[in-house]
Amino acid sequence: MTIPMIWWIAPLSAVISLVCAWLFFHQVKRKNPGNARMQEIAGYVREGSFAYLKQQYKGVGIFFVFAFIIFNIMAWGLKLLDPLIPFAFLTGGFFSGLAGFIGMNTATMASSRTAQGCSKSLNEGLNIAFRAGGVMGLVVVGLALIDISAWFYILNVFHYPLEKIVVIMLSFGMGASTQALFARLGGGIYTKAADVGADLVGKVEAGIPEDDPRNPAAIADNVGDNVGDVAGMGADLYESYAGSILATAALGMAAFSQINLDASWEINFVTAPMVLAGIGAFLSIIGIFLVKTKENATTKDLMFALNKSVYGSSVLIAIAAYFVSKSMLPAEYSFGIFLSSVTGLIAGILIGYTTEIYTSYSFSHTKKIAEQGSFGPATVILEGIAVGMRSTAAPIIIIALAVLGAYSFSGGFKLPEMGLYGIGFGAVGMLATLGVTLAMDSFGPIADNAGGNAEMSNLPKEVRVKTDALDSVGNTTAATGKGFAIGSAALTAMALLAAYLEEVRNALLLMGHKVIDIQYTASLTETVEVTKISITQFMAMYKVNLMNPRFLIGLFIGAMVTFVFSSLTIKAVGRAAGKMVEEVRRQFREIPGIMEGKGKPDYKECVRISTVGAQQEMLIPALIGIITPIVTGIILGVAGVMGILAGALSSGIVLAIMMNNSGGAWDNAKKYVETGANGGKGSDVHKATVVGDTVGDPFKDTAGPCINILIKLMSMVSIVFAGLIVAYSPSIQKIYTGIDDAKIIENTSSVNMQETVIPEQ
Amino acid sequence: MTIPMIWWIAPLSAVISLVCAWLFFHQVKRKNPGNARMQEIAGYVREGSFAYLKQQYKGVGIFFVFAFIIFNIMAWGLKLLDPLIPFAFLTGGFFSGLAGFIGMNTATMASSRTAQGCSKSLNEGLNIAFRAGGVMGLVVVGLALIDISAWFYILNVFHYPLEKIVVIMLSFGMGASTQALFARLGGGIYTKAADVGADLVGKVEAGIPEDDPRNPAAIADNVGDNVGDVAGMGADLYESYAGSILATAALGMAAFSQINLDASWEINFVTAPMVLAGIGAFLSIIGIFLVKTKENATTKDLMFALNKSVYGSSVLIAIAAYFVSKSMLPAEYSFGIFLSSVTGLIAGILIGYTTEIYTSYSFSHTKKIAEQGSFGPATVILEGIAVGMRSTAAPIIIIALAVLGAYSFSGGFKLPEMGLYGIGFGAVGMLATLGVTLAMDSFGPIADNAGGNAEMSNLPKEVRVKTDALDSVGNTTAATGKGFAIGSAALTAMALLAAYLEEVRNALLLMGHKVIDIQYTASLTETVEVTKISITQFMAMYKVNLMNPRFLIGLFIGAMVTFVFSSLTIKAVGRAAGKMVEEVRRQFREIPGIMEGKGKPDYKECVRISTVGAQQEMLIPALIGIITPIVTGIILGVAGVMGILAGALSSGIVLAIMMNNSGGAWDNAKKYVETGANGGKGSDVHKATVVGDTVGDPFKDTAGPCINILIKLMSMVSIVFAGLIVAYSPSIQKIYTGIDDAKIIENTSSVNMQETVIPEQ
Repeated sequence: MTIPMIWWIAPLSAVISLVCAWLFFHQVKRKNPGNARMQEIAGYVREGSFAYLKQQYKGVGIFFVFAFIIFNIMAWGLKLLDPLIPFAFLTGGFFSGLAGFIGMNTATMASSRTAQGCSKSLNEGLNIAFRAGGVMGLVVVGLALIDISAWFYILNVFHYPLEKIVVIMLSFGMGASTQALFARLGGGIYTKAADVGADLVGKVEAGIPEDDPRNPAAIADNVGDNVGDVAGMGADLYESYAGSILATAALGMAAFSQINLDASWEINFVTAPMVLAGIGAFLSIIGIFLVKTKENATTKDLMFALNKSVYGSSVLIAIAAYFVSKSMLPAEYSFGIFLSSVTGLIAGILIGYTTEIYTSYSFSHTKKIAEQGSFGPATVILEGIAVGMRSTAAPIIIIALAVLGAYSFSGGFKLPEMGLYGIGFGAVGMLATLGVTLAMDSFGPIADNAGGNAEMSNLPKEVRVKTDALDSVGNTTAATGKGFAIGSAALTAMALLAAYLEEVRNALLLMGHKVIDIQYTASLTETVEVTKISITQFMAMYKVNLMNPRFLIGLFIGAMVTFVFSSLTIKAVGRAAGKMVEEVRRQFREIPGIMEGKGKPDYKECVRISTVGAQQEMLIPALIGIITPIVTGIILGVAGVMGILAGALSSGIVLAIMMNNSGGAWDNAKKYVETGANGGKGSDVHKATVVGDTVGDPFKDTAGPCINILIKLMSMVSIVFAGLIVAYSPSIQKIYTGIDDAKIIENTSSVNMQETVIPEQ
Repeated sequence: MTIPMIWWIAPLSAVISLVCAWLFFHQVKRKNPGNARMQEIAGYVREGSFAYLKQQYKGVGIFFVFAFIIFNIMAWGLKLLDPLIPFAFLTGGFFSGLAGFIGMNTATMASSRTAQGCSKSLNEGLNIAFRAGGVMGLVVVGLALIDISAWFYILNVFHYPLEKIVVIMLSFGMGASTQALFARLGGGIYTKAADVGADLVGKVEAGIPEDDPRNPAAIADNVGDNVGDVAGMGADLYESYAGSILATAALGMAAFSQINLDASWEINFVTAPMVLAGIGAFLSIIGIFLVKTKENATTKDLMFALNKSVYGSSVLIAIAAYFVSKSMLPAEYSFGIFLSSVTGLIAGILIGYTTEIYTSYSFSHTKKIAEQGSFGPATVILEGIAVGMRSTAAPIIIIALAVLGAYSFSGGFKLPEMGLYGIGFGAVGMLATLGVTLAMDSFGPIADNAGGNAEMSNLPKEVRVKTDALDSVGNTTAATGKGFAIGSAALTAMALLAAYLEEVRNALLLMGHKVIDIQYTASLTETVEVTKISITQFMAMYKVNLMNPRFLIGLFIGAMVTFVFSSLTIKAVGRAAGKMVEEVRRQFREIPGIMEGKGKPDYKECVRISTVGAQQEMLIPALIGIITPIVTGIILGVAGVMGILAGALSSGIVLAIMMNNSGGAWDNAKKYVETGANGGKGSDVHKATVVGDTVGDPFKDTAGPCINILIKLMSMVSIVFAGLIVAYSPSIQKIYTGIDDAKIIENTSSVNMQETVIPEQ
């Protein structure tokens, strides 16, 4: 298969992105790192961050080795996986981890420099922080595209058929999503344990301000921002980004197989999403360069500069989508696919905007939460939960319209495969400019850390004011980023649902089936080549419909898993925070002169406690995400798997939006009171909103974001284990129904392989 | 069609139930109503309760008139409904309302008598309260069965064909569920507004004890127990009970149509669930009589007596199910259907048991919430939410196993229609002994009211101790009742999903279609008689599968609606409570001598405020439940409707379990602290758990229970509006896709009526 010339945009952009990231990195590195004290503090944070990453990667590494062995058994022993899949899995995880490492390396280096920059001007601070964020954005995009391009090119060189290539590559998404879940979970638990520990003992009990160097948990708190918000967020979006491109490529394959077109078009269907992503990467670089303001910029100027960058690159990617689809896809579909991409893009921006409405204290929802503080903490909690629940309406309706739009524009009502390809393109369009949106997301925590550094180094108060201004700008732009994260998770997960069927097809082929009988009703059978089974036929074959109890049960279990998972993460934060609280109390009690600033607090021990706590606590929730689809799949078959994925997706997205927005609204209600509203800092209302904020922390920084990844991880696990389930589920079904195979064939979804395979002519 | 003799068990049991209810009522009435003060207090509560009911029924009446007119337009103008359906709708609502009225009449009469009884002995108190609860249980069961039997008999007399009868009767479920939603919502808002108002101002601000006669909201609080826990719960279960019987009858029809059996079996398939329910009603009476203890019974003895009653009638109904299915259904299916019924029954009991584990302070989960109180309210909230979320696992797995069991036992893997009939029987089996389980549920609030009466009448403390003991026994048995409510809601809603298809079939017939083309794939079409379309064929015809974006979007919207609905109910409680707080504060301020017990508080004004508040606030959430399936249906068609129903069902049940159990656990954590644990009453830990309890109140008494009804109401609305959606949805679909009808037929779910109807031969 000849790769079209235009495809080279993808690897080329990847390389350019990485080169730019390298340049940005050195640009930041050359900046003044501040005085000795600032460097010392930054050094502690850096050290703590790397200590955490080392521990994290050790744990994840063990898991990957274990999974690698299992996958090899499945590939060589059971012959249910292509032998390259275990390696694809490894590279997916490796590059995601590498991106996290580089991003964190940059972020920790940038904090003291940003603080120093802010002592010069707001603009200088923004520049440093945003360039550092840009490193993260571009590294994620660049490494993902390099990984995808390399696999695609090499498999092509070795003459793998295209349909094999897409399924092999798809499963490196599992590596990325496993890494992402561990990063988000571990990071989320770490950052909240440190945060709660620092706040509860330091601020509340000992009465010292935030980021005070006397607080033993202060460093851990700053480390937490890096491991949670930088590395965790990066791994999350790395996974969505790679997942959306790979799923769309697989769906392109599926769509092509249902159209009567010259074979030469096939590769275009598969490579088009890569090309669009490649152009997006390039546009992201331009977007990052667009962020420039005059020397005496106000926060309003900054907001304008940042918005210009996001909207500018969004407009450019829309134009690019037009030309990519026009030049790569058949005339009949190109305009539709263009519209699908734009639909996704617009949805991402709109979701971000609704997030802003429900969580920013410029709007009434958050203000009302603060007002409820006059009745005490209970009403603050109730109002916050109600706001979070209500805030699910707008994003879900936007997602629904985007799905309907992307599906129908691309012609899904004529050919479902094209519709799903369109949904995939919606996700790719939304994530194409990830380089710049992730830069936006990352600079907030960098600014936050810079503020911590300024505080602990006793820099003049005006520096802290400027880092706080940067932080608050970062929070606003982060809302857009969250919109993209949620929207893309939903669309990518849908595309993965469809891509799952491609893996089922591949599993059937691996098992040696070339032709299969599909039983529509007792009297209606159709014989179909496995390579030609359409999505509609798959639905009939495995009865993935609502009246199949296995599907229906799957829906329930999927919905339930997201709640149980959230519960486990919330409790994990609680336990880890409890240990931190004890340690901080112990240090205050046992280290002489600590409160007078003479005794040196043992920062390292706090870092260690958060690290160990996060590592211990993340295992069980992660395992639930991995084991549920496998066990349910074996018991309930393909229909059951699709049921749990759909249940987890629909409930999970809604629950995640609720938790994110409740948490965000509580946080900002507290900040609003701290601006002096409703009695201001120290009042009873303030205390009530602090309770809300504490409840909201694990909602918005641990459970909420992790659900997004859980959904995608479950899809990825299903994809990798598709062969196992296709091969072994029916027999178990026989055990529990006690019905002969022959009857099962006649009346249920399962396909009896021995009976229905028609020998090759 | 000749009605089998055995069917007469249903109306006969209904009459016996009502007679027994009448006897119990007079038994209670004859008891000593206590001294003048006790009667005065009871009089206030009675008056307030009826004032509320009157207002409630006025509002609901207007709604019913409005709906009645719309349904008549749909029936006579658009010819999309059978003309009898509006009347069926009215009777469903009327009998549900009547049951609520009678139940409340009894409950309000019983409170002072129970208090008086408790001053004699615990056993006497139990007897009165339990008999009064029995009235509620038997009236609900009796009226539902009378309504069902009367319609069934009369339609038969007028020679309506059986397939018409089942669809007409099904739609009186909408009357019942509309009434139920208003009752639960209004009652839930009322009771929590009064409760919060009484607690926040009376207990916290003024420092007077609970149920103090000086508290102006004390009467409203007691009224609330009646309108929320007695009338609301009764309407809820009336609806589940009637819904499960009617849906199962419709599924019996559907199952029969797919089997080659002599036509004489048909009526047996339809009447079997009624017969089983009839026997269950009779057994409930026996169960109620089983509750007897010795004169000096301890609470342990009481628990034993009550459990004996529930488990005894459960064993008996299992035996009855065996004989009913053996004598009424073909030998091939009878044992399977028996097993399906028993599966449902066992599931109900097990779910109740898990509820107990997560919410009772005899177990560790609730104790841990209390322990978290030492870190303040935030950790109490987080722990409670985590417990609630985690508690969803066991009931969902039980429901999943019950569905799988009921489906496969009844032969669903051979014939899906039989499997769904089996699921329906699971629900009927679970609810057959509703008479006794509802009696258990109702006696708790009666005991609670008796306690209030004792307190306000200044009876000796030992009386209050006994009413509290009764109340606590009631809370424990109520857990079992909740298990049945949740389990039956899930199973009934599933049965309704399938029954919905029968209404779609009926709509097609009403529109004059006799034969229809089903397009499986582009090249595969089957022509089917409308009366013979199987469930599997319906799934293919309307593409109710996961890869249809309309279904997938429906899942999202359904999940979202349950969250938005919860948000609205929580906020409604907050607003209504806010008004009550102001009023109580005003009375304390303005009525001279009120705190010294000289000035008489204006109880009526508080009752009025709660009543008006509840009425105003219940409208929007109720409308959301009604409008969502209609609007989504018109835009997204049948697949979209089934999507939202499935989304609301799966997410909603999980969310409802979480809210119920979080709320219950917080409540009991507070009570646990009040027993002296973790610092006891008045400690900081206690204050923290009070915050939890306040947050939990609208969770467990308003939002949680209302979600159950919302799910069923949405199904019922879809059923009644099936004709509208089948007739008008495709054209709108054309508008938004812009695709010619011909192409839509070829590739999508919709059926072009003009083209595909083959004229009668």
